[in-house]
Amino acid sequence: MNGAELLLRNAVKAGLKVCFSNPGTTEMPIVEAMDTVPGMRGILCLFEGVCTGAADGYARMLDIPAMTLLHLGPGLANGIANLHNARRAHTPLVNVVGEHASWHRMYDPPLTMDIEALAGTCSGWQKTCSSAQDIGQDMADAIAAARKGQVATLIVPYDYQLARCGEREVSRVEPPVEAVDMKAAGEAAQALLSGRKAVLVLGGRALRAEGLMDAARIRAVTGCDLLAETFPARMERGAGLPDIARIPYLPEMALDVLSPYEVLVFAGAREPVSFFGYQGIPGTLLNDGQRRYHISPGHDALGVLASELNAPASVPGEFLAKPALHDLPQGSLTGDKICSVLAALQPEGAIVVEEAITCSLMYHPLTAGAKPFSLLALTGGSIGQGLPCALGAAVACPDRPVISFQADGSAMYTIQALWTQARLNLNVTTLICSNRSYDILKLELARLGSFEPGETAQALTDLGGIDWVKTGEGLGVPSTAVITAEELARAFQRALREDGPHLIEMLL
Amino acid sequence: MNGAELLLRNAVKAGLKVCFSNPGTTEMPIVEAMDTVPGMRGILCLFEGVCTGAADGYARMLDIPAMTLLHLGPGLANGIANLHNARRAHTPLVNVVGEHASWHRMYDPPLTMDIEALAGTCSGWQKTCSSAQDIGQDMADAIAAARKGQVATLIVPYDYQLARCGEREVSRVEPPVEAVDMKAAGEAAQALLSGRKAVLVLGGRALRAEGLMDAARIRAVTGCDLLAETFPARMERGAGLPDIARIPYLPEMALDVLSPYEVLVFAGAREPVSFFGYQGIPGTLLNDGQRRYHISPGHDALGVLASELNAPASVPGEFLAKPALHDLPQGSLTGDKICSVLAALQPEGAIVVEEAITCSLMYHPLTAGAKPFSLLALTGGSIGQGLPCALGAAVACPDRPVISFQADGSAMYTIQALWTQARLNLNVTTLICSNRSYDILKLELARLGSFEPGETAQALTDLGGIDWVKTGEGLGVPSTAVITAEELARAFQRALREDGPHLIEMLL
Repeated sequence: MNGAELLLRNAVKAGLKVCFSNPGTTEMPIVEAMDTVPGMRGILCLFEGVCTGAADGYARMLDIPAMTLLHLGPGLANGIANLHNARRAHTPLVNVVGEHASWHRMYDPPLTMDIEALAGTCSGWQKTCSSAQDIGQDMADAIAAARKGQVATLIVPYDYQLARCGEREVSRVEPPVEAVDMKAAGEAAQALLSGRKAVLVLGGRALRAEGLMDAARIRAVTGCDLLAETFPARMERGAGLPDIARIPYLPEMALDVLSPYEVLVFAGAREPVSFFGYQGIPGTLLNDGQRRYHISPGHDALGVLASELNAPASVPGEFLAKPALHDLPQGSLTGDKICSVLAALQPEGAIVVEEAITCSLMYHPLTAGAKPFSLLALTGGSIGQGLPCALGAAVACPDRPVISFQADGSAMYTIQALWTQARLNLNVTTLICSNRSYDILKLELARLGSFEPGETAQALTDLGGIDWVKTGEGLGVPSTAVITAEELARAFQRALREDGPHLIEMLL
Repeated sequence: MNGAELLLRNAVKAGLKVCFSNPGTTEMPIVEAMDTVPGMRGILCLFEGVCTGAADGYARMLDIPAMTLLHLGPGLANGIANLHNARRAHTPLVNVVGEHASWHRMYDPPLTMDIEALAGTCSGWQKTCSSAQDIGQDMADAIAAARKGQVATLIVPYDYQLARCGEREVSRVEPPVEAVDMKAAGEAAQALLSGRKAVLVLGGRALRAEGLMDAARIRAVTGCDLLAETFPARMERGAGLPDIARIPYLPEMALDVLSPYEVLVFAGAREPVSFFGYQGIPGTLLNDGQRRYHISPGHDALGVLASELNAPASVPGEFLAKPALHDLPQGSLTGDKICSVLAALQPEGAIVVEEAITCSLMYHPLTAGAKPFSLLALTGGSIGQGLPCALGAAVACPDRPVISFQADGSAMYTIQALWTQARLNLNVTTLICSNRSYDILKLELARLGSFEPGETAQALTDLGGIDWVKTGEGLGVPSTAVITAEELARAFQRALREDGPHLIEMLL
């Protein structure tokens, strides 16, 4: 056995099944080992940002880490933007990055970079292997670290991958089960019963079905409001679940939503801050008079809180969303009409990856009564996450339809994801909001007073000239363009009916 | 005037003309300022790796830095791979990266990253602005640092871009003119005259026409051989210039080429090391018995050395390449036939960006007698450099045809470059070597003994399924596919005749 095989054996033993890969010379022993160690599926992505975004999407759906395989410093650098999103989502993710042979790095060959410095910007845990025989333990440690909800990066020199070594039993470090902080729960319970206007803000795992139900039980007994963080890693939603609004993205709107509350209890969510710092708008969106309580992020803590409050065992029906019957919109497409079509037609069990930026403003409100689905959002603000995340979610859940609701500007960052979707014949329907513009930036220019941007500002926010049908087909995905809501409905239904990936360019 | 305007004014004053941009919210004041400060051309790229690769290509042709404009940490991260190539090319390049408002960063909003740590991995100089009124001096310092042949990164908080400030005269730091080390030149001259078998190894600016001619004069008087570094940032080549071979990429071949020499004089080139560390092959490609001499990288040093040696003022004709008449090859395409077609048909003054990896092995030998051209190579080994570099070179030299000789796997990394080529109607002909495989990795697998790779190794090196014609057209570039050498010759000539970008998929 060599180091590469030892690494993969320990990965498989720990439950890892998939490796989103873009290897180079220094990772070839690990590539070879994928054919000798059973149980690890290597999936090729044509750009590293696709690997890391796919690993994020995979783990958000299954709660087990995916592995990535990246080539030296430049490969890791290309993956960092989506590792940043994964970090913000608290996704368990194991990056394996090759390094020059340990004896060769001193010569500073052309591809040499400071991989550790790069890893430090996005990893909660990292290590550079220092021997072949420890690779097994290093990998077990990386996986244990990742399972705590973070990015773990293991840097593996080429010669250690190749070196012969025995298989040593590794000490498996299981992530600690977080004990519920009873004191915090008790204080939160008292605050919710104090008669003050209160809201329970949910984030992380509290947005899974169990957490949502516990939150609704708490609402039933205390009368508190419920809110979700702005960009959830994964949120369950639809008919039969509590309808929970997300804190708005724009700070002015978020302040309006949050300011009435005297008491805020955070379960798995951070205290909200403005996405950007604007002159005249505070950076934090709470004021000193508002009392804040934090309970552990998991659903257990919410269950404990519900018990403390003697909440009813089940959620009264009035607190659950009713199935909504949507009339299908007609005529020329708008962002809102697209959201309506989706809300009406998205099938039960759909996984919706939302990176539609300005086009999806109405999506959340319109889907309260949609068929139950999972929503995956852009957690770290680093665009180019949607297509890879959809790819990873589809690999994780091959029996569920994946809908990739996508802005055109953001889609271009990691467009290579379409190729892997095609190669694996995944059931991903990519809906491109083709407004041919970075509309969000036009909004920001208007905020600065540029309501009629100059020629250069115009050119730097204008995306005209992409033919998404040809681009999609060029990468192997059957593609079509629509200009009306009726056409969208038909194309969307056809895409869902047929096997494999589809792309629909929605011309706005 | 605000900080953004002050920054741009100083950039324009220092001779910068072009900014390859992919801005976000935190860079909007600089985008606005491009319409109020005359002289800076903002060019939109749809991915940051395109911005940085284009800036590299631009500066390689003009020897003045281009500016980039990148969005926060993720934007910089996306640009790092090509900044790494620029660093290895000693390209002058000024990165401007926006940062959260200085008072907002403490709240750790979602897009916050350690931008300084990222910048440290690819920059020779970096600074985070600490006030609006110093932005002018900061920018002047960044430009002066870049002019020394390095990547300079200036991180500019959003509030300083917006803040009102006066225009303060900046102290312009000009890069020092490097004095020729006469002692080193004298020692090198003696070594070249010692009767030992000697080679002059050229790199960096020594590969420009003047350096090449000086080297040939030295050869004429000493009988030494001439070699070029493996991956030159820019090398002039063709009929009327000395024909200089490049040190081979594969270490076994490089050792064969280098081992006969007792004396090696390096002018602007590093001592060669193996690109990767392989078992049984030394990391450095020279042995202890070989004497090494280093003279300054510029052409002045070569001129001084030539004078020391009483070299003839002009190069005897026998040391210059004669125009070669190539018969055009026929039949199914191979890498070598593609190189022959190019050598025969590439027009005078062409800029050839070479990232064709396994397909271009014969390109260099075959172009000794081609019409004079500039060759730009992949300096740092980080693939995805070719298409952006061609874009930047075409912006720098709008009157010269640019030929982007490109591997399919590498092209996919930064495919978005085609869109900007189309938008600006640049005369770039992209020749895609469509072998539908990471062939270089199959070579590496064979080196490990896997002559018949397993199923996963096969899948992880196989690129089948990209339709380059559709992909190119999807991004706005007229595209065609060819399968024979005759078709390639016709398509290539047509592309050169017509205005604007073209893509030719060469099916191998």
